Amino acid sequence: MQFELTKDYIDELKELISREDNKETLKKVKNLHPADIAEIVRELDPQESRYLYNLLDNETSADVLVEMEEDERERFIEEMPVEILVQKVIDNMESDDAADFLGELSAEKQEEVLQKIQDIEQAGDIADLLSYDEHTAGGLMAKELIKVNEEWDIAKCIREIRKQAKEVHEFYQIYVVDDDNMLKGIVSFKKLLTGRASTLIRNILKSDIISAKTDTSSEEVAIIMKKYDIVSLPVVDAIGRLVGRITIDDIVDVIQEEAEKDYQLISGITEDVEPTDKVILLTRARLPWLIIGLIGGILGSWVISMHESEIRIAPEMALFIPLIGAMAGNAGVQSSSIVVQGIAAGIIDLQGITGKLFKELYVAMINGIILSALIFVYSLFFSDSFELTITVSVALFSVILFASLFGTFVPLILQRLKIDPALATGPFITTINDIIGLSIYLALGRLMYGIFT
Amino acid sequence: MQFELTKDYIDELKELISREDNKETLKKVKNLHPADIAEIVRELDPQESRYLYNLLDNETSADVLVEMEEDERERFIEEMPVEILVQKVIDNMESDDAADFLGELSAEKQEEVLQKIQDIEQAGDIADLLSYDEHTAGGLMAKELIKVNEEWDIAKCIREIRKQAKEVHEFYQIYVVDDDNMLKGIVSFKKLLTGRASTLIRNILKSDIISAKTDTSSEEVAIIMKKYDIVSLPVVDAIGRLVGRITIDDIVDVIQEEAEKDYQLISGITEDVEPTDKVILLTRARLPWLIIGLIGGILGSWVISMHESEIRIAPEMALFIPLIGAMAGNAGVQSSSIVVQGIAAGIIDLQGITGKLFKELYVAMINGIILSALIFVYSLFFSDSFELTITVSVALFSVILFASLFGTFVPLILQRLKIDPALATGPFITTINDIIGLSIYLALGRLMYGIFT
Repeated sequence: MQFELTKDYIDELKELISREDNKETLKKVKNLHPADIAEIVRELDPQESRYLYNLLDNETSADVLVEMEEDERERFIEEMPVEILVQKVIDNMESDDAADFLGELSAEKQEEVLQKIQDIEQAGDIADLLSYDEHTAGGLMAKELIKVNEEWDIAKCIREIRKQAKEVHEFYQIYVVDDDNMLKGIVSFKKLLTGRASTLIRNILKSDIISAKTDTSSEEVAIIMKKYDIVSLPVVDAIGRLVGRITIDDIVDVIQEEAEKDYQLISGITEDVEPTDKVILLTRARLPWLIIGLIGGILGSWVISMHESEIRIAPEMALFIPLIGAMAGNAGVQSSSIVVQGIAAGIIDLQGITGKLFKELYVAMINGIILSALIFVYSLFFSDSFELTITVSVALFSVILFASLFGTFVPLILQRLKIDPALATGPFITTINDIIGLSIYLALGRLMYGIFT
Repeated sequence: MQFELTKDYIDELKELISREDNKETLKKVKNLHPADIAEIVRELDPQESRYLYNLLDNETSADVLVEMEEDERERFIEEMPVEILVQKVIDNMESDDAADFLGELSAEKQEEVLQKIQDIEQAGDIADLLSYDEHTAGGLMAKELIKVNEEWDIAKCIREIRKQAKEVHEFYQIYVVDDDNMLKGIVSFKKLLTGRASTLIRNILKSDIISAKTDTSSEEVAIIMKKYDIVSLPVVDAIGRLVGRITIDDIVDVIQEEAEKDYQLISGITEDVEPTDKVILLTRARLPWLIIGLIGGILGSWVISMHESEIRIAPEMALFIPLIGAMAGNAGVQSSSIVVQGIAAGIIDLQGITGKLFKELYVAMINGIILSALIFVYSLFFSDSFELTITVSVALFSVILFASLFGTFVPLILQRLKIDPALATGPFITTINDIIGLSIYLALGRLMYGIFT
């Protein structure tokens, strides 16, 4: 039922292309979904893929381009004459895809393309969409939608939908507007199909519906559509006129990207990479985090070197250096990630910062007491030095307390400063926690050994 | 447009409830979406929320229950008599929600509820759905759908849709079957509205559509629906008969849960918690990871204690202990998380394990060379001990190489063993990397100092 890309398939296709067998090549990809063709294109050499692409009909080639990864798409478009681009691609795209697509081009090329579009209305729609920030509802929405007037009856409504449907690729919702194009509500297929021909739309519309404004952020759009299970969300302008709609498949991409971005930050990857990417890209995405880790390690070595005399006197102090570092990092990341997920889910703004810090204080104190009791008992039995036992237990408690509060505080502050709070789960904070944890441990050690010896 | 829950609102509502003012209380929540009411219920005391809930009409109360968190729902149902549960709730739910809901009950209570359902067909649908694993397409799908026969013409088709639509909450797709209920394709609203009344459905249906089998895993369903931008996916049985459909809003939840699960594992949280949860829950979710970290730290102290004589002779060896530990952990998590994300996106199976390990080897070698060159230069200038410089540089290179390969290898192996590969990003592997890294560093130091001193 579903296409599976195999090495055999690619080999056969390459063979057909090398023989320039247009008919058989086209037959091979004929009934495939554009997403599958985009995947095939990825596996071919540039020449082969261009050959295959040129064989496709206009609508399919537009769809395939939409499904491609951004960098591949750029490669493709670069050498395409503007006329072909407009005829083969833009004319066959929904306005939101066309706008996304043009958004990737240089300003000059954008203008050139817009001027070549025959249909003035389409060109206008695309130009409108290009003016919105891509991270807002305006940047996500498409202009194509089905709308009916609240004064119409069902019979007229169905006639009009028939007309409008010719222009729209696919639709899941019928919007109702008044004479001024103000959004009044939606009318369901069910109501249209089960009502009488003479019933007025205003009598069957559902009026208390949820909509977004053009400047609503894409994160908020995602939260709204998820929360209320909305398949197609209407977008209105500042005074409430219907200007577009966002479908759930666009939001699935937003949700996915948000989650991936947070995951990358916490795992220390700086770019969007996949295991199939090139070695150089994979290296570049990972080196920055590692270098920050290295600098953190060097700072850690300074902290230790300031206590070198102490370690010379009590080398057993070295034993728990890894433990303190690891625990500081872990406790901090746990706290930060809970806050980051809360912010992403849109549930964090109900309480103030103080309340959250107090709660975190309780959690940290319970964890700290349990863990330092454990290490106290362990060290009491297995270490010869009572000073060390006291030092590591007190240090562990302090470190967990500090790292938890710091880990909660930082993402909240970043959020207030309009900086991505997920940065707090990344290398900087972990490194700071490590170093401060180490300092607490060694300073306590100095105190202890100073007192007892 | 969108409801915002404020403290004032809750206070007013509590006031109305305390006065037992049914009319005003109901008015206050009247036009709200069930998702919002569920949120309000969360903020009330058990008694208040039960009072409010009993005021709601049957359909709303069913919807509110669907929107609740699982533990809240359990609390609610516990004390509800089975008759009320069936009348007020089950009868007003779509079959998939009803099945999910019953799935949370004990086997006895399930049976009791099923027997009380008047509508035999509905009871049968729910019983069918209960038999599927909840992590498969069968477990996700709903039974309610609109289907037409390929032999019908458009006029008959619209008549039938009208009839069927009365039973279905909302629909986005019309499925076409033959006399044996085998799935033949879909027919779009557009085609129905723009075609002639006498046109046969078989002539306008889209036949090459994508479907899932009942035993397709929910992860795969998510990948398919995302890739092909499907709003409503048909589900067929082993021989291709149409048995249900999955809508994208259910899949958004699957995607979200998958992403959250992976994020929790990498951040060291063992349960699904939110910053608004109780202190005891937050503590319980975090303590296990911290205890594993503690055990790792203790193992680390054993490794160091085996080298205590070495540190006594060369205390400067302690300097880079935090650096080596941090770098081993970071490099390992980076590698694992790239593999985990690749598996989640469904793009990892194209190549074999060997190829991936070789690629990882190159990446690790480049990173390792750069980083150990950096630490070599640093240490050469800032440390008095050439032995230490050599030790830390060679150790860092080895540690990055080992941790990267180990970090790639483990999730791939877990995947083969059908264990969640994201476990590799969690505490165990990081701890193992830390300890092995430390061992490499100290063993190299012993060798170095043994040779040079």
